[in-house]
Amino acid sequence: MGATGIVGQRFIQLLEGHPWFELSVLAASGKSAGRRYRDVVHWTLSEAMPDDAGEMIIGPIDAKIFKREGCGIVFSALPAEVARTAELKLASAGLNVFSNASAFRMAQNVPLLIADINAPHLALVEQQSKARGGFIVTNPNCTVTGLATGLAPLKQGFGIKHVVVSTYQALSGAGFPGVSSMDIQGNIMPYIPGEEEKVEMECKKILGEVSEEGVEPLDFGVIASCARVPVRDGHLQSIVVELNRNFTLEETKKAFAEFKGTGEGKLPTAPGKPLVVSGDEARPQPLLDRDCDRGMAVTVGRMKKDQNKLRFFLLVHNTVRGAAGCSIMNAELAKVKDHI
Amino acid sequence: MGATGIVGQRFIQLLEGHPWFELSVLAASGKSAGRRYRDVVHWTLSEAMPDDAGEMIIGPIDAKIFKREGCGIVFSALPAEVARTAELKLASAGLNVFSNASAFRMAQNVPLLIADINAPHLALVEQQSKARGGFIVTNPNCTVTGLATGLAPLKQGFGIKHVVVSTYQALSGAGFPGVSSMDIQGNIMPYIPGEEEKVEMECKKILGEVSEEGVEPLDFGVIASCARVPVRDGHLQSIVVELNRNFTLEETKKAFAEFKGTGEGKLPTAPGKPLVVSGDEARPQPLLDRDCDRGMAVTVGRMKKDQNKLRFFLLVHNTVRGAAGCSIMNAELAKVKDHI
Amino acid sequence: MGATGIVGQRFIQLLEGHPWFELSVLAASGKSAGRRYRDVVHWTLSEAMPDDAGEMIIGPIDAKIFKREGCGIVFSALPAEVARTAELKLASAGLNVFSNASAFRMAQNVPLLIADINAPHLALVEQQSKARGGFIVTNPNCTVTGLATGLAPLKQGFGIKHVVVSTYQALSGAGFPGVSSMDIQGNIMPYIPGEEEKVEMECKKILGEVSEEGVEPLDFGVIASCARVPVRDGHLQSIVVELNRNFTLEETKKAFAEFKGTGEGKLPTAPGKPLVVSGDEARPQPLLDRDCDRGMAVTVGRMKKDQNKLRFFLLVHNTVRGAAGCSIMNAELAKVKDHI
Amino acid sequence: MGATGIVGQRFIQLLEGHPWFELSVLAASGKSAGRRYRDVVHWTLSEAMPDDAGEMIIGPIDAKIFKREGCGIVFSALPAEVARTAELKLASAGLNVFSNASAFRMAQNVPLLIADINAPHLALVEQQSKARGGFIVTNPNCTVTGLATGLAPLKQGFGIKHVVVSTYQALSGAGFPGVSSMDIQGNIMPYIPGEEEKVEMECKKILGEVSEEGVEPLDFGVIASCARVPVRDGHLQSIVVELNRNFTLEETKKAFAEFKGTGEGKLPTAPGKPLVVSGDEARPQPLLDRDCDRGMAVTVGRMKKDQNKLRFFLLVHNTVRGAAGCSIMNAELAKVKDHI
Repeated sequence: MGATGIVGQRFIQLLEGHPWFELSVLAASGKSAGRRYRDVVHWTLSEAMPDDAGEMIIGPIDAKIFKREGCGIVFSALPAEVARTAELKLASAGLNVFSNASAFRMAQNVPLLIADINAPHLALVEQQSKARGGFIVTNPNCTVTGLATGLAPLKQGFGIKHVVVSTYQALSGAGFPGVSSMDIQGNIMPYIPGEEEKVEMECKKILGEVSEEGVEPLDFGVIASCARVPVRDGHLQSIVVELNRNFTLEETKKAFAEFKGTGEGKLPTAPGKPLVVSGDEARPQPLLDRDCDRGMAVTVGRMKKDQNKLRFFLLVHNTVRGAAGCSIMNAELAKVKDHI
Repeated sequence: MGATGIVGQRFIQLLEGHPWFELSVLAASGKSAGRRYRDVVHWTLSEAMPDDAGEMIIGPIDAKIFKREGCGIVFSALPAEVARTAELKLASAGLNVFSNASAFRMAQNVPLLIADINAPHLALVEQQSKARGGFIVTNPNCTVTGLATGLAPLKQGFGIKHVVVSTYQALSGAGFPGVSSMDIQGNIMPYIPGEEEKVEMECKKILGEVSEEGVEPLDFGVIASCARVPVRDGHLQSIVVELNRNFTLEETKKAFAEFKGTGEGKLPTAPGKPLVVSGDEARPQPLLDRDCDRGMAVTVGRMKKDQNKLRFFLLVHNTVRGAAGCSIMNAELAKVKDHI
Repeated sequence: MGATGIVGQRFIQLLEGHPWFELSVLAASGKSAGRRYRDVVHWTLSEAMPDDAGEMIIGPIDAKIFKREGCGIVFSALPAEVARTAELKLASAGLNVFSNASAFRMAQNVPLLIADINAPHLALVEQQSKARGGFIVTNPNCTVTGLATGLAPLKQGFGIKHVVVSTYQALSGAGFPGVSSMDIQGNIMPYIPGEEEKVEMECKKILGEVSEEGVEPLDFGVIASCARVPVRDGHLQSIVVELNRNFTLEETKKAFAEFKGTGEGKLPTAPGKPLVVSGDEARPQPLLDRDCDRGMAVTVGRMKKDQNKLRFFLLVHNTVRGAAGCSIMNAELAKVKDHI
Repeated sequence: MGATGIVGQRFIQLLEGHPWFELSVLAASGKSAGRRYRDVVHWTLSEAMPDDAGEMIIGPIDAKIFKREGCGIVFSALPAEVARTAELKLASAGLNVFSNASAFRMAQNVPLLIADINAPHLALVEQQSKARGGFIVTNPNCTVTGLATGLAPLKQGFGIKHVVVSTYQALSGAGFPGVSSMDIQGNIMPYIPGEEEKVEMECKKILGEVSEEGVEPLDFGVIASCARVPVRDGHLQSIVVELNRNFTLEETKKAFAEFKGTGEGKLPTAPGKPLVVSGDEARPQPLLDRDCDRGMAVTVGRMKKDQNKLRFFLLVHNTVRGAAGCSIMNAELAKVKDHI
């Protein structure tokens, strides 16, 4: 769902040749329905459009059709307002939705999931299934997916007291047409509506503890400053974390390097390791590091210590690990865990 | 001196039509000497090269020539290594040097001066004059010039405990040829050699107290994360300041808006006010705000409070207020104060 | 009219402090009317918004209001579809419209005017005034304004047989939001809807002969290939002209250098000379040459001869000489010629 | 040879996993020799550096070493001046060099080869082998490789009288550090030293007829206007060809679409077809089309007819088909034809 947008395109590109999942229906809201995908989409990826998907006729967002076509999973790249109604309807009709939309990320019994970071949160779907028949699993905002991945080993090993993050966010994060070239060519836009609030809220839920009642968010302070930069893909982040205990730079480097995440069993879309530590003093860089491990690994570098504060830079591919890739990895975890 | 580089070009452009100073000699190191300025310089400013300067013959760096030509002031845009020897020689020969080079910024009796921020530091030149005949006045690193301007009213009104700054620095800061287009087009470089150290050190000196013995640096923590972005001019900074006392957002906004700096008397190159508070939720932006008050005013915006921490964005034109413009304003202060 | 768009903004910026004209009414279509300019416009110029204009209340497009406010001239930056109805209404109500819109450029008795290139065409307004009371004067498409300026001395001295032009057109030519950053960042778009047709048609009319019946277009072939590039302002053009007679490279250089245009009397907005020949082997460049003579002069360079064909590059500031600036210069000519 | 430059990096990336060739020695001139590749190279490709190559020690350019290591083929990405001496030495020592350097492209008995366009030219190596023991095969300038591919079907079907080409050339074509970001960010550079001459000369040789005495260049006029644009990879070209006979637009589209080139037998690096006709009215675009058929196919589009002139846009990946990829494909042809 939401097949024509940038994240929708990325879903299609990543699902081509997927070992477990097969694309059977493309759906979109509004005026695209009934038309051939190739004729409607403004394709923006440098990877060529898969021929099969190009020839598919876009259908409406309709639980009956999805069920008739035997969809075990529905991936959603819908805008938040559309998702709010549509995803709930589908879950109530017994479908399982893996959604990149922000609509239900903070909802009580909806997992805000990064499969290799907070796998236990997936258990929340059982409550949903009981209540609705189907369930919704969300993945976080693209910036948060990177940030939470970088914070996870620090939480484990040192405890997090406060986080200051400044972002250098790519254009594809704003969708299409998204940011006007008149606003961003040779310029920086130090404002992304709603983004800072999402960053501050979502990363606490992801790093929180799950119980039968829901998720108890991790308690720490966050100040996010989000800016758009003239880069196509890849969100760079400058992060300063105040840790709960004394540490050495070596300890934190080791914590990053040895971090394996919580993913049990090997998922096809998961990276070898969630975090890669760059040895180059001038990296991570969007252009060189965003495709690390097919865009699914987060790269960190430039660690520096100042008393109990750790500074580092982090890079996440915002439409792969930060959106469609995370959603697909989440669905893979759900399958392995027999939720679908 | 250093007339062919980007900062040198900016000196020439800003000195054209200056009410007090007249350009009488252009000097450069090495192979440019003896040639016509127009034939040697790779002009990079969108403002046209002043015709007079274009026709001048570049001379060597030589105190005798400067004195023979009656130079009361020598502006230096030399590289640090060259400056280290050359500027000292000139001062010892009785000349007064206003330098953008980093060589002597941290030296004991050398003012690190922003005329409208820490005017009293200029008094240090008296010690130098006694010792050497002439003196050196330095202006800070381009990033620091902006940062210190933004911190000054906060120091005054609230006290500064800790600063976290992440930068979005323009290409012109690296000089010419500077950054390769292969490294920065559609990319961010999260590393600028030596820059973070300068930021952390210099802003403490500027905000420090001057006495007969020298400058007592202000005591506070600084973590600087410096990145290069594909923007031509204008250094944007995302700043989080931990203040020494409780505050309201309104108080800090007022402190910014009412800040007048320390400049006594009106200097031709000084801005109306050192700081301009932008009312737009998506500014300051390099493209729209760098030329604020002829590039001499710093623009701030997007203030946000989190407990005792204040977040804001700040923009400084890196080659005007951040380099040549600051140097000229400093010389104007020295003239008003009868040091030259 | 059309005050909030990019060309509208440029009109406002160029009219600030104009010696003859004063801005008395701002008008826009649709939902902007009734609101303060500053609150509605998405300002995109690096020059600051004039304070007076910022405070003006935008009015509707209404001949009565314009007459009540004593408007002797109406400048139009309307979209073509709106212009088609609105401009005709105003002219019929006795107002004189100087329009950047394409709606009436090719109309029989409407001058397609560049005041310093084809001043005699202005005479067509007399027919209009008789028929309608007021008149419409159009200025050409931004690319054509540059091209026709470059071709004028070649027509005069050698005769033009065929023109091949490939363009490198700036983002501001597409308005706001215009081109999506996802389409153009690090990319070239070799297609601008409708542009090639305009180029091929309009330059023949401008270079044609005016008579009482209208304009007899100049007869020559044109192939235009128009591409959008990631440059903010300034349309660069690579031009190959097949001339009607043998020539030497020196002759054509001289023709460019000595070209004075047809402008009689000095107009405040007109450039010193319509054409400037660059002596630099790597120019004209958008960044360095677009502001030549306040953006009103066209720069040419890189002349090369191949048999009877002349190759050169040309640059025009697309929103100054190529739009608002040309319109204002045209109005100045009309005033000098007592048409208003 | 020349392993550390941008074309050298592309050779290494394309040879990874090659079915016929294996990388056994890396060589570079000057100060890189004796050091580990990973420690010396400034890697600029978004594809990760192959691990094996990263660990190799760079050797000097030395025929003895190459022979000792059993090199049947030497690929050269050397600068022209170095190539002039080095390549001739190697050929005289019996080695077969496939070179991207310009040094010998126009030499009498050296093939200027694009394997799928002018395969018969390869026969020239027999003369060289007799004279020197080994031979040199060159591939053309990156722009020419695209242009000649686009012209080949037109020559075949219609005959070429005159060509006007304006280019939009990518940054990687200038190597590293190549173009300064201060020159090209938000700008166009309408000058590339030596490029226009190469384009005009080389495409006549490629499209010429080979005989025992050498190559008789095709006789037609060429005017090339070469400009650098802020695009990372992919040279776009706006081309107008005057053909020798009348034609319809359909005929030329068919000639492009059905063009199979001269390649006999399937070579691993060759594209399925040398030319791909884009159906999209706004393509080819560098970002979307440069990787067409792994960067080895040229894309054309936007055909337009004006009397006997055909206009179209063309795109070639300048470091793949336009450099290293072409060289490798040429070596594959030489192997199939038993020259190595």
